[in-house]
Amino acid sequence: MLDQIQLCDGISRVEIAQRTGLTPQSVSGIVRRLLDEGIVREDHANRVSSGGKPRTALRINAGAGSAVGLHFDPVELTCTVVDLLGRPLVVRRRPTPPGTDPSHVVTAMTELVAEVLAEADVPRAQVLGLGLATPGPIDQHLGMVVAPPQLAHWTRVPLKQMLGDRTGLPVTLDNDATAAAVGERWSGAGRGVANFAYFFFGTGIGGGLVLNHQVYRGGSLNAGEFGHASVLPDGPECYCGNRGCLELLANPSAIVTAAHHRLAGHSGGDGGNSVLREPFERDPRLVDHAAIRVAAGAGDPLAAAVIDEAAERVASMAVSVANLVDVDLIVLGGHGIEHVEKRYADAVAAALATRPLSRHIRVVDVAPSPLGADAAVVGSAALVLHATYSPQLSALLAD
Amino acid sequence: MLDQIQLCDGISRVEIAQRTGLTPQSVSGIVRRLLDEGIVREDHANRVSSGGKPRTALRINAGAGSAVGLHFDPVELTCTVVDLLGRPLVVRRRPTPPGTDPSHVVTAMTELVAEVLAEADVPRAQVLGLGLATPGPIDQHLGMVVAPPQLAHWTRVPLKQMLGDRTGLPVTLDNDATAAAVGERWSGAGRGVANFAYFFFGTGIGGGLVLNHQVYRGGSLNAGEFGHASVLPDGPECYCGNRGCLELLANPSAIVTAAHHRLAGHSGGDGGNSVLREPFERDPRLVDHAAIRVAAGAGDPLAAAVIDEAAERVASMAVSVANLVDVDLIVLGGHGIEHVEKRYADAVAAALATRPLSRHIRVVDVAPSPLGADAAVVGSAALVLHATYSPQLSALLAD
Repeated sequence: MLDQIQLCDGISRVEIAQRTGLTPQSVSGIVRRLLDEGIVREDHANRVSSGGKPRTALRINAGAGSAVGLHFDPVELTCTVVDLLGRPLVVRRRPTPPGTDPSHVVTAMTELVAEVLAEADVPRAQVLGLGLATPGPIDQHLGMVVAPPQLAHWTRVPLKQMLGDRTGLPVTLDNDATAAAVGERWSGAGRGVANFAYFFFGTGIGGGLVLNHQVYRGGSLNAGEFGHASVLPDGPECYCGNRGCLELLANPSAIVTAAHHRLAGHSGGDGGNSVLREPFERDPRLVDHAAIRVAAGAGDPLAAAVIDEAAERVASMAVSVANLVDVDLIVLGGHGIEHVEKRYADAVAAALATRPLSRHIRVVDVAPSPLGADAAVVGSAALVLHATYSPQLSALLAD
Repeated sequence: MLDQIQLCDGISRVEIAQRTGLTPQSVSGIVRRLLDEGIVREDHANRVSSGGKPRTALRINAGAGSAVGLHFDPVELTCTVVDLLGRPLVVRRRPTPPGTDPSHVVTAMTELVAEVLAEADVPRAQVLGLGLATPGPIDQHLGMVVAPPQLAHWTRVPLKQMLGDRTGLPVTLDNDATAAAVGERWSGAGRGVANFAYFFFGTGIGGGLVLNHQVYRGGSLNAGEFGHASVLPDGPECYCGNRGCLELLANPSAIVTAAHHRLAGHSGGDGGNSVLREPFERDPRLVDHAAIRVAAGAGDPLAAAVIDEAAERVASMAVSVANLVDVDLIVLGGHGIEHVEKRYADAVAAALATRPLSRHIRVVDVAPSPLGADAAVVGSAALVLHATYSPQLSALLAD
C-alpha cells in the first residue's frame, strides 16, 4: 500500500482500495496507523475531486526516516542515504581497497557510511537499515558472498554479519544487479512497468527481473544472470562453468581485444582514419574500454564497429529474454555502456522490433537507465524501505 | 486457499491460516461458505492431532463440479473432463481435421466435447467451463490465435468466441505449453515446487514457467518460448523471425535430417550396425522421428547419438534458463520425447550439475513429466478451476 502511495503521489484512500483490492475499512485502518506513526500525511491543500465528494490526498512524509545504500563493486564503493521517497540526499564514492582481506573492505565501508550520514546530517537512530548490493552469486540466507568470480579468494565471506557488527545497522543483502533493478523500479525507467528486465553492464554483464510488479529473485536468489546465458554453445569455456557465455563475447576485455585486433590490421579496413590509431601506436594500453566507448560515442568508425558488434550480441540475448520471460521493457544500465547508451539501445530496439514471437502483439520497449551507475546504490537503499515496510504491512493486515 | 486444500489434502483450518497468512477468522468464514456451497467437506474420520486439540481435516468434494479441457494440437485434438481435484474422468483423442478452415476444426472440437461429457456421464449444467489449450502465440484478451507458425493461414481466428457459441460453455484460452505447466503444477512433477520451467516437446519446442508458486504468463501472455531462444546467433533464420533458434536444431525434423545424414554415410561410422539401416535402405521415410526415438530408447548407437546431440542443445538451454530465471526444477514433457525421456533427462541433469552459476548453492532438479502428452489437456481443465475459484475467493475476501 505504501508502494501505491509512493508510485502515485497524492493518491486517495478510495483509489488505494480500488488498486489493492483491500476493503475501504482495511485501507482506512492501515492509513490511520501510518498517519499515527508519521510515515504518511494528509495533504488537505490538494484534495482530489472527481465528480463526487472530495477525497483527501495522501503523501509519504519523506523526512520521517531514511535508509543507507551501499554498492560494493570490486573497483569502487558507492554509498548513499535516501529519504522515505527513495530520493538520494548524498552520494559518495571511494576506491575499493585492493587485496584479498575482507576486513579491510568492511573497514572502508564502515567509514564511508559514517561520512555519508555526517554529510547528510542524518542521526544514526533515524536510519531504518543498510542495504548492501554486492556482486553475485550471493547466499542471502547465510548473508555470505559466494565465490564472486571477480573477487579472488572471497569464498563464503559473512559480509552481512561483519558489516552489521561494525555499523550497528541491520543489513539487507542483495545481488548488485537485482538492487539496480529495484532502483529502476523505484525511481528509474521501470517505474510502474509490470514486467521488465534490467541489463547491468559493469566489469561483467548481469541483470535483474521485475515480474508482475515484483522483484523476481529466483529459487536461489540469483535470477537475471544475462551474461551467463550461452550464445555460442560450442564456444570457449567461461570462468562460470558454462560455455560461450554472452559475457565472454561482450564484456570490456572482449571489446578491448576486438579493437586492438582491428587496430593491428587483422580485420576490417577502417583502422587508418580512427582516432584510436595514434594512441594505439604509442601504447596499446591507452586504448582501453573507456577510450573505445568515448570514441564510439563521438562516431569514430572503428570504435563504433567494435561496440556495435558487442551490442548485436546483447540484442540477441534481449530477444531470447523476450521469448523466454516475455517482458514489456528492457532497461540498459551500468557504467560499462557510458557514452554508448544510444548505440546499445538502437541495436536492441531493432532486434526487438523484428525478432521476438510476441512482436505481432506488442513490441518490447527498450530504455537506457536514467539512473546510470547509481541504480544499484539507490536500489540497495530502496530494498531497506521494502524490507522495513512489507512485514509491517503484513502485520497490519493480519490484525 | 482452495489451492492449499488441494495441495495438502486433509489440511486443517489452522494450517491454512499459517500457510496463507490469513487470520483464523477469515479462514473460518471462507471455509464456512465453501462448506455451504458443497465444494469442501469436513473429514471427521481423519482428525489431525498434533499434540493440542484435534483439528478437523478439510477435503475437496471432488464430485461437486467438473471442468472440460481441450488440447488443440495441429495434428490431434485431445479432450478430458476432470473433477474438482483435477483428476481426469475420461480422455478422448481424434485427428485434427486437415485443411485451412477453422470452422471444421471447431465442429470437430464441439463433437469431441459432447462425446467426452456423455462418456463421463456429466450433465452440461455441472460443467464450470471449458479450458482450451492452443499453440502460441495467442492473444488472450481478444481470444484469438495469432499467426501460429504451424497452422498456415490461421491468423487472428476468434477461436474462443466460436467455441463458446458452439458448446454453450464459457471458454478459457491459454497457450498449450502454459496449460501443460499448469497440469504439471496441479498433478504432475511440479506439485508444490515454487519455481519451475516446463519444456514441452511437440511439433516444436515450447514451454511454460511457474514462478513464486504462480503460473507466470508474461506481458503479452507468451512467456516460456524456450524453442525460440537463440543458440546460434549467427545461425540460419527461423520461421519465427529470430536466428539460430533451439527449435531449428532440436525439433523432430532436425533430428530426422541428422539421422538420415548419418545413415547415408555422411558422418559417423556407426550406421552399419544400426537397426535403422535396413528400413532406411528400403524407404528413408520409414525412419521418422518416432522410429528414431524407439531405436534410441532401445539403445541403438546411431539413433542414441542423434538424440543425444539434440538433448545436448536442450541441456544448454536448460542452463541458460537456470541462469536467467533461476528455477528450482526443470520438467521435460510432451510426446516429442516419448521413449527417450531418460536420455534427455540425463543430459539436462549433467549440465545442470556443472554449469549454472547457482550450482554452488543448490543443484537444479530435472524430472520427466509423469503426465506426458496429457499435461496440456489436464492443465487446460485445471485452468477452468483456477479461473472459477480465484475471482470467487477474491470476492469472499472482500466481503
